Amino acid sequence: MILTVTLNPALDVTYWVDRLALRSATKVRRVRARAGGKGVNVARVAAAVHGPGTVCVTGLAGGSRGEAIREAIAALGVREEFEVIAGESRQTIAIVEENPQPTELREPGPTVTPREWDGFTRRFRVLAKEASVVVLSGSLPPGTPPDAYATLVRAAHEVRSSVIVDTSGPALWDACTAAPDIVKPNEAELPGVDTVVMSSQESVLAAARLLRDHGAGAVIASLGRAGSVAVTADGALRVSHPRVDGNPVGAGDALVAGLALALASGQPLGPAALARASGLAMASVAGSGEVDPAEAERLADMVRTRWIGDGQ
Amino acid sequence: MILTVTLNPALDVTYWVDRLALRSATKVRRVRARAGGKGVNVARVAAAVHGPGTVCVTGLAGGSRGEAIREAIAALGVREEFEVIAGESRQTIAIVEENPQPTELREPGPTVTPREWDGFTRRFRVLAKEASVVVLSGSLPPGTPPDAYATLVRAAHEVRSSVIVDTSGPALWDACTAAPDIVKPNEAELPGVDTVVMSSQESVLAAARLLRDHGAGAVIASLGRAGSVAVTADGALRVSHPRVDGNPVGAGDALVAGLALALASGQPLGPAALARASGLAMASVAGSGEVDPAEAERLADMVRTRWIGDGQ
Repeated sequence: MILTVTLNPALDVTYWVDRLALRSATKVRRVRARAGGKGVNVARVAAAVHGPGTVCVTGLAGGSRGEAIREAIAALGVREEFEVIAGESRQTIAIVEENPQPTELREPGPTVTPREWDGFTRRFRVLAKEASVVVLSGSLPPGTPPDAYATLVRAAHEVRSSVIVDTSGPALWDACTAAPDIVKPNEAELPGVDTVVMSSQESVLAAARLLRDHGAGAVIASLGRAGSVAVTADGALRVSHPRVDGNPVGAGDALVAGLALALASGQPLGPAALARASGLAMASVAGSGEVDPAEAERLADMVRTRWIGDGQ
Repeated sequence: MILTVTLNPALDVTYWVDRLALRSATKVRRVRARAGGKGVNVARVAAAVHGPGTVCVTGLAGGSRGEAIREAIAALGVREEFEVIAGESRQTIAIVEENPQPTELREPGPTVTPREWDGFTRRFRVLAKEASVVVLSGSLPPGTPPDAYATLVRAAHEVRSSVIVDTSGPALWDACTAAPDIVKPNEAELPGVDTVVMSSQESVLAAARLLRDHGAGAVIASLGRAGSVAVTADGALRVSHPRVDGNPVGAGDALVAGLALALASGQPLGPAALARASGLAMASVAGSGEVDPAEAERLADMVRTRWIGDGQ
């Protein structure tokens, strides 16, 4: 007989989560509780090799967790001879992240001089004339004027280009005053939505309508796995799709690319265009930022859309 | 043409690591640098769908990173029209953990009364008589005497059982004074090895010899992916094996199970026994803590051992 001694056994509880959100709520996808402690693990392996009845576990176990530990060991076909004590045995909590977001470090960017900004806006006016669709994306580097995006939206409209704005915070709010054709905030970028609690469809709709009231022609709020909500002059659409495994970084940009392609081809922002754009976002997740157009078309077929209200 | 504007583009650098070690050194397995920023991402996807030459990227880019960003965009078949500025464009660093260790929360365990400890040691003496091998594993719960393991080692030897001790810190050091047959520290548990820097084979050997000098019959120092170093009366053996993907939690316990099975069958702690024990540890990694004995035998054939010195 092999006797293993575990003086401080544990009920080992494992939680599988998608990603551990620090200082926020995390949904647990799967739970496992099993008897643990090094000697218990040794016994489990020795019994797997040597067969049941050849290994005995002893040590100190107490309370309801001690009870659970002893039952779990007996169920392994391992003899259990714990000394029962008054104290409650410990548990360990292991949190396994199945789909961890990368840890990112972001610099603010270079400081732009007024002269450089002027040079850029001149260049922009020339380029926008050639463009059917202009996409303004991302944060403003230090030194650019706070109304940078509103200026560019107006300049693009003057030369009859459509404009999509994908930014956040004051830059998004300011851009709306120049009436861009589409803005695409994500959940965290919507004004007034508290992302610590799960935001309801109602609060997303309310925030999207707020951006339209402020001047945006259409608002496509991307909600990650939950799809998106689109509010246009024609009404509000809920866009949902099956779960795709992969890396979600860049999926929002792929969605914007799909919206730009729809505007470039004169397609209205209805169910078909939104499904196609969502297919690109899903393909970006599946390809970790690299989009396979054929895969995107296949995925677009799995997107579901339904009208959930009007545009106001 | 679709024109995307990225005022604050970035050189997106991604590091793939096994696991990010906070306040310690981490080895980077793979590096990728590519042009980033939301508008650049939009252009990449739009160009993948629409074809080269249909998408143009503008914005502000400067310095050597700006240069790298512009070159990378041109290489995508996307027209690049950045306004060059004096400041240095930013980079983002994304750290992707390929094999994240679970986040664990461990309780200290229940407090044990002297009476409970006496009850246990009586039970232990009875059980040890039946055992050919006793394995003492893990931490001591609060309330147990500091020489708990030394006491149990002596009690087991009195009834002619072999003893393996797998613990750390003062409990390991104290257990050695009672001359256990085997101790199995891991790298972090070896006395005097600084784990912030990669410990050399020499420092592992020196620490293992220190534990033998202190009374341990044999020392098997497990080094995770790097295999193990065994120091016995017959000499010092380096045990190495190919990389196995999976969950390393419990692999050390599987190694101990293999050592116990070797002692139980009277096998000497030479290359064959160590290869078999390592095969169990590798199978535990592959099975995320569950060992398939047939798989363990297959993996044991891939273990290499070589003598690297004597036992002193």
